[in-house]
Amino acid sequence: VRIDSVDFFYLAMPVVTDEGDGSQDALLVRVTSGGHFGWGECEASPLVSIAAFVTPMSHGACRPVSAAVLGKDVSTPEDIALIAAEIGWNSMDLLQAPHTWSGVEMALWDLLGRARGEPVWRMLGYQRAEPKTPYASALFGDEPQVTLQRGLAARQAGFRAAKFGWGPIGRGTVADDANQFFAAREGLGPDGILLIDAGQIWGQDIEAAAARLPALEQVAAVWLEEPFGGEAVGAYRALSARSPVVRLAGGEASHNEAMAYRLMDDGGIGFVQIDCGRVGGIGPAYKIAQHAEASGITYVNHTFTSHLALSASIQPFAGLVKHEICEYPFAPKPLARDLTTTRMVPDASGHITAPDAPGLGLEISGETVERYLVDAEIKVGGKTIYSSPKF
Amino acid sequence: VRIDSVDFFYLAMPVVTDEGDGSQDALLVRVTSGGHFGWGECEASPLVSIAAFVTPMSHGACRPVSAAVLGKDVSTPEDIALIAAEIGWNSMDLLQAPHTWSGVEMALWDLLGRARGEPVWRMLGYQRAEPKTPYASALFGDEPQVTLQRGLAARQAGFRAAKFGWGPIGRGTVADDANQFFAAREGLGPDGILLIDAGQIWGQDIEAAAARLPALEQVAAVWLEEPFGGEAVGAYRALSARSPVVRLAGGEASHNEAMAYRLMDDGGIGFVQIDCGRVGGIGPAYKIAQHAEASGITYVNHTFTSHLALSASIQPFAGLVKHEICEYPFAPKPLARDLTTTRMVPDASGHITAPDAPGLGLEISGETVERYLVDAEIKVGGKTIYSSPKF
Repeated sequence: VRIDSVDFFYLAMPVVTDEGDGSQDALLVRVTSGGHFGWGECEASPLVSIAAFVTPMSHGACRPVSAAVLGKDVSTPEDIALIAAEIGWNSMDLLQAPHTWSGVEMALWDLLGRARGEPVWRMLGYQRAEPKTPYASALFGDEPQVTLQRGLAARQAGFRAAKFGWGPIGRGTVADDANQFFAAREGLGPDGILLIDAGQIWGQDIEAAAARLPALEQVAAVWLEEPFGGEAVGAYRALSARSPVVRLAGGEASHNEAMAYRLMDDGGIGFVQIDCGRVGGIGPAYKIAQHAEASGITYVNHTFTSHLALSASIQPFAGLVKHEICEYPFAPKPLARDLTTTRMVPDASGHITAPDAPGLGLEISGETVERYLVDAEIKVGGKTIYSSPKF
Repeated sequence: VRIDSVDFFYLAMPVVTDEGDGSQDALLVRVTSGGHFGWGECEASPLVSIAAFVTPMSHGACRPVSAAVLGKDVSTPEDIALIAAEIGWNSMDLLQAPHTWSGVEMALWDLLGRARGEPVWRMLGYQRAEPKTPYASALFGDEPQVTLQRGLAARQAGFRAAKFGWGPIGRGTVADDANQFFAAREGLGPDGILLIDAGQIWGQDIEAAAARLPALEQVAAVWLEEPFGGEAVGAYRALSARSPVVRLAGGEASHNEAMAYRLMDDGGIGFVQIDCGRVGGIGPAYKIAQHAEASGITYVNHTFTSHLALSASIQPFAGLVKHEICEYPFAPKPLARDLTTTRMVPDASGHITAPDAPGLGLEISGETVERYLVDAEIKVGGKTIYSSPKF
């Protein structure tokens, strides 16, 4: 079944601010093939990712992503992996390519699953989709009191697990940070699963990060996320060795398998966080999840946009019992919230489970797409190579 | 002096083919500030890199490159590094950003050098520009006889050093490859500096690469370039340990300093190849060159386009005596050949030297820009956010 079309829908809120909220825009991908269709979502700059699909070729190793996709025959997951390999080779010099391909890859899995009437997780070989404990992501408040309130709010919204990140952490004293950690614990309650995200604030400064460990141990934080830049593998390794209780988490920026393996194998992390919309889609994410399982590392999805992205991000580790925590878009913008007609809502016990339905198991709301669609157009040499498609 | 404008000129040959020749198109950057100007060149997909400069913001960590550049005050090299740091932080989730920024960074160095009347290499702290031995890059022929002829041609064109790459290498038997290596040596002559580029053909297969080492030693190849994918650091390390004579070369795809350091520190390479148009420009390339010097590794530029890119790529190691080999665009397409009004031609002894002239020391040909300029336009929300500028 040949790929007939790949459409990119660039959605955005009427106003996009510089807050750290990735749900302010979205790049939705629709693939059609032989009467079937599938949906995916890039976790990436929409316009730049579209350009990487439609751009003219620069040379043999800098071809647009479209060159490896359009007209290809996709009947099995192996066919998807073959396209990925071709992009790795022929778009080697196109840096943005993995971000673009990730959404297309997801859509191909969705399409195959719909065509076969099977959920993606079953196509990956899992017997069942295990319940996951969603965590709510919140920013630290400027004052500990605000952080405490946000912890209470997460708990009241039904979340046993919550992650607090960014904001003032690392910008003041060690004691300031400790007060924030205590506030988060107090808000979330003694039995809550508390996760801390440093947002790369310490760059490569191991001592600055290590100074926060005693307070993190005291509040029983489960992980310390991204103390350093994603490339600072040596710093990860050094801090990991000094933090046997509070394990490190990282990997969200991985745009290929190797980046994730490096943090796992050389960085000593305890939790690997993978965004399917960046890493090249579901296939590579699944392999990373298997490597995590084999290495005693816990796999966690990185998702801060729609429930389409959430479903895609859970598939790779849907059947892994011990990998229980999952990131959950807590308060996304309306465009992300309303992108799907149904959502993965926590059950009575507070768990979510990957849909037991064909493909990714969710339908896209045409009304939402139309409401937030950004009118974009790219012309090269007088020819229009991209214009916003119709739903 | 505030940055007033950044203009991107997308140039392309009338026909672009899938051959591995990166000089078929170009992305030229002009920066103006307070009556001064400077030129740079991205080694990247032009349209995608332009999009990364002009795209609307997605969120606080996915801002366009322009957000950190336009209106900034640039009076010293430190100001350039500050912008780079801001992009690293605020465009963290925009994968293409380093490729875009690289050309802008170069242009800022050129601008500062012109404003001060100093060559960039002197601004980097070098006392003089050392002569470099340029090597001609050629593809292996389909038959060894063709390779031999290309070796002769390189020698006749005045090049003592030549690199042969890609083509049939790794696709046939070990003996087939040996015949190619012998042919290259025969063509280049016994005293020629022979470099071999495997173009990542062995993926991560250490044994396949190691099987070629005896023939490479026999022909006295100086380096074996990119036996593996750039992320396969473990494979580099393993092969390096087995090849004390023929050292490995790699690093051209590095789009940040950390990628280069990893190949140097963990991969055991003997030659680090850096493209200033990808790695983030001249500043990071200079730091990598210093790290190479301190580590007993030889720094080499990666350049396959214009002499503007060549000058920029030589600046970071211009003053390092022991780092003598430099890549030289041997037979670029007319658009790259004619982009500058003067070129860095080998002297009577066959050496080239970074220009002793302000900035990067070369002027751009308006005629060439106008001849090859691609008419491109990007519209978002009814507003034109990019259209090809006038020279």
